[in-house]
Amino acid sequence: MRRDKPEVALRHRSPESDQEPLLDGHQHEALLGANFSHPAIVAATELFERADGVVIGTPVYKAAYSGLLKSLLDLLPQFALTGKTILPLATGGTTAHVLAIDYALRPVLTSMGADHIVQGWFVLDRDITVHEDGTISIETRTDETLSRLIDQFSTATGRTPRLATAG
Amino acid sequence: MRRDKPEVALRHRSPESDQEPLLDGHQHEALLGANFSHPAIVAATELFERADGVVIGTPVYKAAYSGLLKSLLDLLPQFALTGKTILPLATGGTTAHVLAIDYALRPVLTSMGADHIVQGWFVLDRDITVHEDGTISIETRTDETLSRLIDQFSTATGRTPRLATAG
Amino acid sequence: MRRDKPEVALRHRSPESDQEPLLDGHQHEALLGANFSHPAIVAATELFERADGVVIGTPVYKAAYSGLLKSLLDLLPQFALTGKTILPLATGGTTAHVLAIDYALRPVLTSMGADHIVQGWFVLDRDITVHEDGTISIETRTDETLSRLIDQFSTATGRTPRLATAG
Amino acid sequence: MRRDKPEVALRHRSPESDQEPLLDGHQHEALLGANFSHPAIVAATELFERADGVVIGTPVYKAAYSGLLKSLLDLLPQFALTGKTILPLATGGTTAHVLAIDYALRPVLTSMGADHIVQGWFVLDRDITVHEDGTISIETRTDETLSRLIDQFSTATGRTPRLATAG
Repeated sequence: MRRDKPEVALRHRSPESDQEPLLDGHQHEALLGANFSHPAIVAATELFERADGVVIGTPVYKAAYSGLLKSLLDLLPQFALTGKTILPLATGGTTAHVLAIDYALRPVLTSMGADHIVQGWFVLDRDITVHEDGTISIETRTDETLSRLIDQFSTATGRTPRLATAG
Repeated sequence: MRRDKPEVALRHRSPESDQEPLLDGHQHEALLGANFSHPAIVAATELFERADGVVIGTPVYKAAYSGLLKSLLDLLPQFALTGKTILPLATGGTTAHVLAIDYALRPVLTSMGADHIVQGWFVLDRDITVHEDGTISIETRTDETLSRLIDQFSTATGRTPRLATAG
Repeated sequence: MRRDKPEVALRHRSPESDQEPLLDGHQHEALLGANFSHPAIVAATELFERADGVVIGTPVYKAAYSGLLKSLLDLLPQFALTGKTILPLATGGTTAHVLAIDYALRPVLTSMGADHIVQGWFVLDRDITVHEDGTISIETRTDETLSRLIDQFSTATGRTPRLATAG
Repeated sequence: MRRDKPEVALRHRSPESDQEPLLDGHQHEALLGANFSHPAIVAATELFERADGVVIGTPVYKAAYSGLLKSLLDLLPQFALTGKTILPLATGGTTAHVLAIDYALRPVLTSMGADHIVQGWFVLDRDITVHEDGTISIETRTDETLSRLIDQFSTATGRTPRLATAG
């Protein structure tokens, strides 16, 4: 059970994942139309409301989180993360972008009321392999680090966390 | 001529503007589909290539630029702003978000190779009025400040600047 | 007991405070000399080691934390905040600098291993009055907000927290 | 002439440099005492006033500029960089801190009125060698990059720039 969480967090790497994505391709229009009443946005908002912990994953483009992630966050209520524990994760092509999590993503999450944003992690693209059947493997040391972070995140979130993911 | 530039920069406040928007409603899908070959994205990329100066305007949501703006920037080439002069503008409901221009937007623009990002400005929503006929009026002191900034931007951009706008 | 904590956190506002400052005037040289073996730095490092929770307070100058605070943090071990709960507080002359806590201070604290940085607060200079006898009074609503934050911080830190302060 | 500028910018790496430092050891107390009338601070302020271009160099500690640099900037007037061209440089042990220039240092310089902050550079500690006689050598490719940046900076600053350095 523990092991599948990094994959969830990094699902943007694998559109073929068997887990239901928060928004599928046809629903992306809901993001850019700023359509707060779109069923996909209403569902996402409710999912966040119910969650005790949220894994936020994003690729780093242009030294920051993706526009797609921010478009989703823009449609959530201002304080959608109040009282929640957050695990921020990012992927990118170069370690030169590591600080994007702390300087770009965290301030946005804090502004949304996040109570506890645990130490996150930056995963190099080359440490993630998406196989033909849609499964993902992660380089051994990175996988161990992610497992440790997931454990810390689970502990911080509480005994029986319900998790939401975004990214 | 000088006067219309703040309006251009702040066009996101006025979808009824008679100026052609960079992307219209139906083309927003191009942003979220990460469709680099979509005609609207190709056209936007070419517009940026030709421009000497670019006005980047965004509302501030969740203490940062909008996801919509970032989605556009994500689809441009990594160094789409090399050699260009940039005027960053933002609008928001509270002065508490003023620093979002310098801490969130500028680093992204710098990562895209921007050579010269002049001093920008944060305009309070309440200082902008969109009239029924689609025209915009801006509170007098803010308007004067914007005019001064536009002048500095024009000088920095060069004698006969061609401008692109985004936001 | 609860009430004295904002004063501790904001002690930099009141050099006349009867509480022992972390470093007194003559010991400031230890900061700039990068003198890791100076008794005042050794003592500060040990104080941080023993603490479960740390209140970090700083005035905002030039849109960021003070150089004095950063000079102290620079002399602490790289991961001096690992496993600790942090309450970040700032004071400043204008609400336009509110985001300095989240965009400037938090990333530094996160890089030092901070496990849990709770929601902080920005206090306007004009809401703090230092009286002739060295006591401090804080504007009523701000005082209530700080008390609530201190309670949340105490809860996050644990049952019997030992606190260190810096700033 | 061109060649000595990176060394100036990176002088903090070489206290034995034959160039006069802005502040010597005994004057550091002026920084932390917030002593605006100290002769060393008055001299530094005047040096900034006269300069058309300023090279700001800093080591990266704890994911940001040094407290020592910020202490100097804190003592300068709020808009000490108005109308000036700035070249930001940083050194550090890991490329993971590259973004500290754009996310931490630039916002501070912008808040001080800097008109034009050109593209900066992050130099790895291991690419700089301080020899026994106090001279510095810089790894070839880094040296070439710095020379190119210095040229761009000189061009941006103007025909006959007078330079100040800090860091």
